Amino acid sequence: MPLQAPVKSDIVALIIRKDIAGLRKFLEPWLPADLAPLLADLSVAELAVLFRASSRELAATIFTYVPLETQKKLLKVLNQEQVGALLNALPPDDRTTFLNELPLDVAMQLMAMLTPDEREVAKSLLAYPKHSVGRMMTLDYIAVRPEWTVREALDFIREHGYDRETLNVVFVVDASGHLIDDIRVRRLLLSPLDRPLRELCDGNFATLAPTDDREKALDVFRRFDRVALPVTGDDGKLTGIVTVDDMLDVAAEEATEDIQKLGGTEALDEPYTTISLPRMVKKRASWLVVLFLGEMLTATAMSYFEDEIAKAVVLALFVPLVISSGGNAGSQAATLVIRALALGEFKLRDWWRIMRRELAAGTALGLILGLIGFLRIAVWSMFSTIYGPHWMLVALTVGFALVGIVLWGSLMGSMLPLVLKRLGLDPATSSAPFVATLVDVTGLIIYFTVAFLIMRGTLL
Amino acid sequence: MPLQAPVKSDIVALIIRKDIAGLRKFLEPWLPADLAPLLADLSVAELAVLFRASSRELAATIFTYVPLETQKKLLKVLNQEQVGALLNALPPDDRTTFLNELPLDVAMQLMAMLTPDEREVAKSLLAYPKHSVGRMMTLDYIAVRPEWTVREALDFIREHGYDRETLNVVFVVDASGHLIDDIRVRRLLLSPLDRPLRELCDGNFATLAPTDDREKALDVFRRFDRVALPVTGDDGKLTGIVTVDDMLDVAAEEATEDIQKLGGTEALDEPYTTISLPRMVKKRASWLVVLFLGEMLTATAMSYFEDEIAKAVVLALFVPLVISSGGNAGSQAATLVIRALALGEFKLRDWWRIMRRELAAGTALGLILGLIGFLRIAVWSMFSTIYGPHWMLVALTVGFALVGIVLWGSLMGSMLPLVLKRLGLDPATSSAPFVATLVDVTGLIIYFTVAFLIMRGTLL
Repeated sequence: MPLQAPVKSDIVALIIRKDIAGLRKFLEPWLPADLAPLLADLSVAELAVLFRASSRELAATIFTYVPLETQKKLLKVLNQEQVGALLNALPPDDRTTFLNELPLDVAMQLMAMLTPDEREVAKSLLAYPKHSVGRMMTLDYIAVRPEWTVREALDFIREHGYDRETLNVVFVVDASGHLIDDIRVRRLLLSPLDRPLRELCDGNFATLAPTDDREKALDVFRRFDRVALPVTGDDGKLTGIVTVDDMLDVAAEEATEDIQKLGGTEALDEPYTTISLPRMVKKRASWLVVLFLGEMLTATAMSYFEDEIAKAVVLALFVPLVISSGGNAGSQAATLVIRALALGEFKLRDWWRIMRRELAAGTALGLILGLIGFLRIAVWSMFSTIYGPHWMLVALTVGFALVGIVLWGSLMGSMLPLVLKRLGLDPATSSAPFVATLVDVTGLIIYFTVAFLIMRGTLL
Repeated sequence: MPLQAPVKSDIVALIIRKDIAGLRKFLEPWLPADLAPLLADLSVAELAVLFRASSRELAATIFTYVPLETQKKLLKVLNQEQVGALLNALPPDDRTTFLNELPLDVAMQLMAMLTPDEREVAKSLLAYPKHSVGRMMTLDYIAVRPEWTVREALDFIREHGYDRETLNVVFVVDASGHLIDDIRVRRLLLSPLDRPLRELCDGNFATLAPTDDREKALDVFRRFDRVALPVTGDDGKLTGIVTVDDMLDVAAEEATEDIQKLGGTEALDEPYTTISLPRMVKKRASWLVVLFLGEMLTATAMSYFEDEIAKAVVLALFVPLVISSGGNAGSQAATLVIRALALGEFKLRDWWRIMRRELAAGTALGLILGLIGFLRIAVWSMFSTIYGPHWMLVALTVGFALVGIVLWGSLMGSMLPLVLKRLGLDPATSSAPFVATLVDVTGLIIYFTVAFLIMRGTLL
């Protein structure tokens, strides 16, 4: 029987009746993840009833599935003791994420409710920078010793494994805590029971540092196909592990960030549907204003050509067409290069390869658009006088300007992310709109220069 | 000792000397994944030497780490027998991916080299649609029976697990192959050895269908934090499993597709650095031409206002500024809505909620830009006569037009993806440039209409 979400009306009915016993029975067969879709629709008061009916572990897991705003409200309606139990039962990595989102004073209050052991754990994790591996790591792993046999390791797992984040990999450490190797549980399961673990070690393992960026972790997971990676300090001591289930969330968040930046907005850092309107407007306005200020240069550039426009108003008609084509070509190139950089497809020192590609691609694309533009004006002019007697000059101007502008846009779009990266900035910041704005301004100059060259003595 | 890539010069030296024995010794301690970064720099001939020195399993894994183009070339330089051994040793899911990229006749030839068993497997996987779960699934899983004890299951794993894709989850099936439950190996390891598996089953599991899109699989993995999911047919029989390590690649590919579409190009479907130039130009040109044809409407729209431009050339100066602001606002809104849709943050039927948000956000953003635009012209005019005696009318026109256009852009940008989704199309197709183009044309009409209303009787 495939998984079905619990029937919402049933559970709500039980909650309204505050039928704790009934709820307990109802909840028993479900995994917390099954309840997740249902939690979104419950009010905070209803969630509190659900919490009272849940085991400590279930409550902790449910807590990790509700959005931050709800988490905050929940803490307020639960009593002191319940909050303490909940906080202590939360997986350390999820707890770090939560505490980190709270105002400092609230976080401190909550920290005070932790047991001394858990408080130590929370403190050490919170000391790492945001979006670092340290923030995501958990201390609930299985550490074994090289002199143990496979049987001893399996017995140890059976005895101590119940609250560990993953049992898919165990970590071999020496007496002073230095990581010797990681062993997949598959190797344990496939090996004779009396073999010492030392013989299963190949000394070959990937590690992360707690200060590594989570993007690096994502990259290592992707390349090495692991389910968990050990995190070691500078001294080579095992300080925690990161598990692959967190990586899918990291992958989604990192992609969201890049996509939003490419779309010309600051990364929202919270869901579009729940972010408060003022916060969203602020994040969007900052970039819009920057782009607007940049785009003002178009008015400045155009004012230099005011006389030309007055003499040949027909030139003004094609301004949006011509400059937007450059912007589009630039957006394409920027998007492709930024994504390829993010996926590690090439290194900065390969910039000339990229430039050569874009020179060729930009020329080809420019010729295609230039030809279409030329033909459009030429064909129209056969049936109307809209572009005046000098339509051929107009067509040539638009055609040649398009070749130059599309090529220029492709080059700018591809090189700008590399320049930003070289300067140590995030290449995704050179969003499609940003490149488009830059290309708009320079595109105008190209357009009117071509016009001047072609129309000098006739229209201009 | 943290992971270090094998020293490249060493391995290349061994390859050049064709020192197979030396290579074998050199390769022995390394995991195939460790070799991956090094493979990129080897020529096909060098790779072929490396293959000869590798065990069948190592060769197969190395093969999965090199890019498609190299894979194709490799097959040509290996002899018949080597190719056969390699193909038979490839993990079925990777083999499917590879065969799928080949011309049909080549794929058929290679299929003929498989053993009858492997050929059956390959055929059945290739029958599923591209980007479906069926294409990614593997048949190498551990199936156990409910009447077995934990000890029997562990013994079975020890005996049969060596070539299975994952041992982290085992699948309980009845005598006719129907899936009863999945059990994480952690449960096996934590349970008393003489407990029957039936008692570990809770009948609670998520399944995928082989025809499901891989995006759905990604979503289920993300929500349920699993390392492997069973794939069942309509009859409830277990047909294969999908593992989480493939999901990180799927997540990256899906994000790449969305990002590229948002950037106004067809998804490349292969790396930017290796795609052939003509293929890339084709993928980029198709969208650029569509956008160009759309943007031609701006020339048409502008030609309706030719008289107004001739009378007040100053109006033309602000055309790029005004319409690009609408385009930028539209790109932002489109990007945010498309990403929120992809992450399942809201449903289509919530469109009015999105519209209300964008009405408010668009108005706020429009007022901000409108005010800046107004001030820019007003302040400039205090120091120069560039905008003529009627600068106040110009400033008002630009200011009010910006409010309208930014609001309009936000609404178009947010609603267009929803319309596309409603029509069964991919919302990501309404790329930022696409929205910008639409908004450019309508923005011109808004701008000149506002100008007409404000300047009637004076400038116009």
